[in-house]
Amino acid sequence: MCNSCNYTIHGRHHHFGWDNALAPAERVAPGSTIFFECLDSSGGQLSPESTVEDIARLDFARINPVTGPIFVDGAEPGDALKVTIEEFKPSGFGWTANIPGFGLLADDFKEPALTIWKYDASTLEPALFGKHGRVPLKPFAGTIGNAPAEKGLHSVVPPRRVGGNLDIRDLAAGTTLYLPVEVAGALFSVGDTHAAQGDGEVCGTAIESPMDVVLTLDLVKGANLKTPRFTTSGPVTRHLDAKGYEVTTGVGPDLMEGARSAVAQMVDLLAGRYNLDPVDAYMLVSVCGDLRISEIVDMPNWVVSFYFPRCVFE
Amino acid sequence: MCNSCNYTIHGRHHHFGWDNALAPAERVAPGSTIFFECLDSSGGQLSPESTVEDIARLDFARINPVTGPIFVDGAEPGDALKVTIEEFKPSGFGWTANIPGFGLLADDFKEPALTIWKYDASTLEPALFGKHGRVPLKPFAGTIGNAPAEKGLHSVVPPRRVGGNLDIRDLAAGTTLYLPVEVAGALFSVGDTHAAQGDGEVCGTAIESPMDVVLTLDLVKGANLKTPRFTTSGPVTRHLDAKGYEVTTGVGPDLMEGARSAVAQMVDLLAGRYNLDPVDAYMLVSVCGDLRISEIVDMPNWVVSFYFPRCVFE
Repeated sequence: MCNSCNYTIHGRHHHFGWDNALAPAERVAPGSTIFFECLDSSGGQLSPESTVEDIARLDFARINPVTGPIFVDGAEPGDALKVTIEEFKPSGFGWTANIPGFGLLADDFKEPALTIWKYDASTLEPALFGKHGRVPLKPFAGTIGNAPAEKGLHSVVPPRRVGGNLDIRDLAAGTTLYLPVEVAGALFSVGDTHAAQGDGEVCGTAIESPMDVVLTLDLVKGANLKTPRFTTSGPVTRHLDAKGYEVTTGVGPDLMEGARSAVAQMVDLLAGRYNLDPVDAYMLVSVCGDLRISEIVDMPNWVVSFYFPRCVFE
Repeated sequence: MCNSCNYTIHGRHHHFGWDNALAPAERVAPGSTIFFECLDSSGGQLSPESTVEDIARLDFARINPVTGPIFVDGAEPGDALKVTIEEFKPSGFGWTANIPGFGLLADDFKEPALTIWKYDASTLEPALFGKHGRVPLKPFAGTIGNAPAEKGLHSVVPPRRVGGNLDIRDLAAGTTLYLPVEVAGALFSVGDTHAAQGDGEVCGTAIESPMDVVLTLDLVKGANLKTPRFTTSGPVTRHLDAKGYEVTTGVGPDLMEGARSAVAQMVDLLAGRYNLDPVDAYMLVSVCGDLRISEIVDMPNWVVSFYFPRCVFE
């Protein structure tokens, strides 16, 4: 339900991969407000009853469906699509998985693992993790973007300059996102909704959760953006930060190695302190820990820090 | 003045570079609270009257002095030095420079530039930038660490596993820092105090500001830390976040290039919107913009985001 919406795009209008030859699900005027039904990133293959065995059975051809595409009248290459992120209507069900071969610490965590989440979709109270953990929620769209100019079918997995699988935690309600347009009509799609994620999405998945999304699509003619940019309407971490953070660091000449080191040390710290299986700690930090670059100029060593919000256990 | 301190280490007890053969400035028991007088990172070469010409004349042999070292009784390799960051007593004067050859966008900004800051050391009200900018302050120690085990004199510029020039913005009052100990006594030093800095310190300098620092040094025997870690006592960005953020992104397979792209686009955005000289925008974002890794798993493209706090101009 969305009284103020101009259109509803039902979940059956989803597609796998970006392809500018796909027929639009709808053609809209700039300024239209649209209600999108979004599937979770497993495309419905995982449910509240799923077990770790279902991870091995995932059909990767059905991963990362996005709802759309929307043809926006008048959109041309060089314009920016202005996406006002109005509202999320979460489902109350979510999952986080360690998928072998995927994730920042794939070499350390080679076995599949699954966490099933249940949360209150109306109050969005923190979701319970084990006996003592409480993970603050902030719904957002992990994949949000336009079709690329290059012909053919392109995987949804990598984000691009036109957006896509950006997995930016702050693309939440209240944020305005600007996406480069590369084809006539922009051909915008959205999906991969998350109930919570930390900066980095380090295990490769967030709290993956089917959700409805309300967006307003408008145009900025001739914006000539290089890559996506966005404006948040207010603070972005106050749901997490009240008790402060535990922080681990990686110090060295390679940012990727620094990130791996910081995350691995946080996994060890939490697993030891709270008696968690390391892979559970790894999935936990993926949904609420934040990777920050503390310094990137003190040659030849950079510092990557990983911030875990203490409110989860305190 | 520090009534509760056990020792004062005067600014004349500074050294250039890390060397575990340096004689301690003081020998203290674990649990001691110490007042450190810290020089700015130019070692007093820059003053409120300095001009851009003084950047070209900087003597790099006198850069990055640190006050110490402190020999902590009983500290042995494998222990952690627990540093409780009690208080900063700022000076009210600061500077930010673009130093040719140094900084994330060194290839774009080849000429020296200097910003002189004056701030109220008692109220720590935001520091004025140009006619309209107001930069929130949060004092911290950019360089804080122990002597490395390796013999000889080592540059202070790169941070190490024992700490040093970490430039972590949240090593502010209220934070507890744990540093690996590699030599008997730890040989701890501190300096390079900053009145404000964003995550990344992207132009290579912060609001560099001489300051006095009160720290309590204690030991955690046999901690066997790999790299520094810390605990913040509360939120870390509430001085910045009330009005939200403008955010630019870099999308691609290299985190360093992603960071460069995001920062360069923010410099362009602010320079255009607020009619700033690009190098002034570059220095501004270095003291208050934050580099975050939004996602590091969607192969082969990662997303680095650069967050500029809107409160500076709104």
